Amino acid sequence: MPKTINAIGVHSAQSDMTFMSIQRRDLKPTDVEMEILYCGICHSDLHQVNNDFGASHYPMVPGHEIVGRVTSIGSAVTQFNVGDYAAVGCIVDSCGTCPACERDMQQFCEGGTSLSFNTPDKEMGGFTFGGFSKTYVCKEDYMLHMPENVDLAASAPLLCAGITVYSPLKHWNAGPGKVVGVLGIGGLGHVAIRIAKSMGAKVVVLTSSPAKVEDAKRLGADDAVLTSDTEQMAGYASKIDLVIDTVSANHDVNAYLNLLAIDGTVVLVGLPNEPIEIGAFNVVKGRRSFSGSNIGGIVETQEMLEFCAEHGIVADIEMVQPDQVNEAFKRLEKGDVKYRFVVDMKAL
Amino acid sequence: MPKTINAIGVHSAQSDMTFMSIQRRDLKPTDVEMEILYCGICHSDLHQVNNDFGASHYPMVPGHEIVGRVTSIGSAVTQFNVGDYAAVGCIVDSCGTCPACERDMQQFCEGGTSLSFNTPDKEMGGFTFGGFSKTYVCKEDYMLHMPENVDLAASAPLLCAGITVYSPLKHWNAGPGKVVGVLGIGGLGHVAIRIAKSMGAKVVVLTSSPAKVEDAKRLGADDAVLTSDTEQMAGYASKIDLVIDTVSANHDVNAYLNLLAIDGTVVLVGLPNEPIEIGAFNVVKGRRSFSGSNIGGIVETQEMLEFCAEHGIVADIEMVQPDQVNEAFKRLEKGDVKYRFVVDMKAL
Repeated sequence: MPKTINAIGVHSAQSDMTFMSIQRRDLKPTDVEMEILYCGICHSDLHQVNNDFGASHYPMVPGHEIVGRVTSIGSAVTQFNVGDYAAVGCIVDSCGTCPACERDMQQFCEGGTSLSFNTPDKEMGGFTFGGFSKTYVCKEDYMLHMPENVDLAASAPLLCAGITVYSPLKHWNAGPGKVVGVLGIGGLGHVAIRIAKSMGAKVVVLTSSPAKVEDAKRLGADDAVLTSDTEQMAGYASKIDLVIDTVSANHDVNAYLNLLAIDGTVVLVGLPNEPIEIGAFNVVKGRRSFSGSNIGGIVETQEMLEFCAEHGIVADIEMVQPDQVNEAFKRLEKGDVKYRFVVDMKAL
Repeated sequence: MPKTINAIGVHSAQSDMTFMSIQRRDLKPTDVEMEILYCGICHSDLHQVNNDFGASHYPMVPGHEIVGRVTSIGSAVTQFNVGDYAAVGCIVDSCGTCPACERDMQQFCEGGTSLSFNTPDKEMGGFTFGGFSKTYVCKEDYMLHMPENVDLAASAPLLCAGITVYSPLKHWNAGPGKVVGVLGIGGLGHVAIRIAKSMGAKVVVLTSSPAKVEDAKRLGADDAVLTSDTEQMAGYASKIDLVIDTVSANHDVNAYLNLLAIDGTVVLVGLPNEPIEIGAFNVVKGRRSFSGSNIGGIVETQEMLEFCAEHGIVADIEMVQPDQVNEAFKRLEKGDVKYRFVVDMKAL
C-alpha cells in the first residue's frame, strides 16, 4: 500500500508553500526508498511553483537536489543497501531505449524524461512529487550513490547546479591550457568556478556585481571582470575558450561571444524568456558557437559527484528549516543568498 | 614600375560597373603575376559594390574567385612557374605570426586579413583591386595551384563559394553516417551539396523554393524538404547532424535548430543584416549549437581545390562577357542565376 508522508508544497501558483501530505508508492522489486536528509532550493523550483513556464500541475511538491539515506530496497535491488547515503537529482525515469538514453543522456529522452517533480508519474498516476518531503522512491538505476566523507548538506546542490555546469565543462574540454569564463555568479556559477578550476582551466568570472568581483578569488577564480567595465572586457577579447552562461535573465550574449578565441563557445545553461539575439558577424568571425546544455545523464551525474568528492567541491550553502522555506523562496527571488539554500529535511 | 592594366569596377556606390585602368605593383622577389582567365561573381561583390557593409572604398574593382595563368614570377619564387594555372581567392596577405595565422586560419588574422579587393593595399597604398581585371599580383604563399584537367571556368567559384562550405563541412565532420542539411540553394548551397555528398554524408536540401526541390536530386542531394511544409520539416525533427546555412537574408533559424540531433550544429556562412533570434530552449535541448564559419585558410583552400578535382566537383555556371557584368549583377540581385556567374576575363 502506498505510504502517506509529510511534504512541503503549494496548492496553486498564487499560494505560499505549506505543509501537506502526499503518497509514495509501494516498492517495486527494482525500487529504492530513501529518507530525505537535505534538499537544495534551485531557481527552477521557484519558476515551477510560480508556473513561469506555464506547465505546472498542482498540488506541487518541488525539490530536485535531494540527499538522503536508504531505508528500504526492493527484492531485486543490487546496487543499494539499507543505510547507504544516496541522492536523487532531476531525472527519475526515462525510456531507456531511445538514442539519447542509449548515450546516457536521459535528459533528452525522446519518450519524455520523468523528472523528480511535476512530470507525469508513470507508477502512481498524477504528477511526480519532489524532495521537499520525508521520503523519495525511485528505480535504483536513477538513484545516485553519495561518496563517503562528504558534507551531505553542502553536496545537495551538486545534484542540479553541479551537474548542469559539470556536463558542459567536460563536454567542451575545460582543462589545462583552457580559459573558462563563468558568467553569472549564483548557485550554478559559484560551483562552476570550483569545478572548472579543479579540471585545470584558468577561470575568469564575468559579473555585473562589484561584490561578486570581490568574492571571485575566494571562490577560486583566477580573475574577475566587471562586465560593465569596457576596458576590462576588451582585455579578454578573443581570449576565452568557453563561457558557461548561467544567466536566466534576458541578456546580450554578443559581448561574450566577442570574448571567445577561435572555435570558442558560449554555452547557455539558463533559460531566458526572450529570444537571444546574435549578430551574424559574432559567430562567423572566429568560427564561434552559441550552444546550450541541460543538466546531465545519470552516469555523468554519478561521475560528477565523485569528481567533486575527490576535489573537495561543495556549494556555499545557507541551511534553512522546513518552516523557513517561504522566506527562503522570497530571498532567492531577490538573489539574496550566498549561494544556495538547502532545507534541513530531517526536521520535517 | 607598376603596370597599368584594364579592369572593370565602380567609381561610387551609385554607379554602374565600367571599364577603368588600375595599377598592379612591380613584382617583389616572392611575388607571382597571373593573367586572369575567369572570375566568378559572388554575392559579396554585389554587397561591396553597393556599400551594403558600409566599408567600401572607391574606385573599387571587385572579384575574388580568380583563376588564371602565371605570366611572371619574382626572383625568390619557388612554388610557381610561368605557364602554371593558378588561382587567387579571398585572402592575399596576413601577418603570418598571430595565433590564427599559425593555425592557417588567415581569415581570422589578428593583424587584419588583406583581402583580394577593398582592403588596405600594404604594397601600393590605397585599397586592393580584385579579379575583374587583366592581371593579379600577390605573394606566392597566398596564390593557389589549380589541379590539372579541371574545368577552369567552372572551378572559379570554388575559390569563395567552395571553400566557404568545404571548411565547415570538414570541421564539423560531414562524412559517412552523418546527415547534412543544406539550407539555401544558390552559389554556395549547390556546391555544398556536392562536397558533402562526396565526403560521404547523406544530404538533405532545405529550401523555400519548389523549383529547387525539383533541382535538388540533379545536384546530388538524397532528399529535399520544402521548408514551408510543416509535415516534411517534422519528418526531419532531431535527425540532422549539421545544417550549412547559406542564407544571407534575415531568417528564423529556430526551425532548423529543431531539426538537429543531439550535439548538432547550424553553421551560418551568410551574413544576415538583422540579429538572429534564438530561443534558449532550442539550444539547451539536445546540446545544440548555432555557429559560424568564414571562408577558410590558404592550406585548406588548396586542399579543397584538390578534393573537388578528385571528386569532379565544379559549380554550375553561366559564363558572361566583360560587357555583360552590369546585367549579371542585376540578375544576381534577383537571384536569377543557376548557380554562379563567371566572367570570361580573357576578353577584357
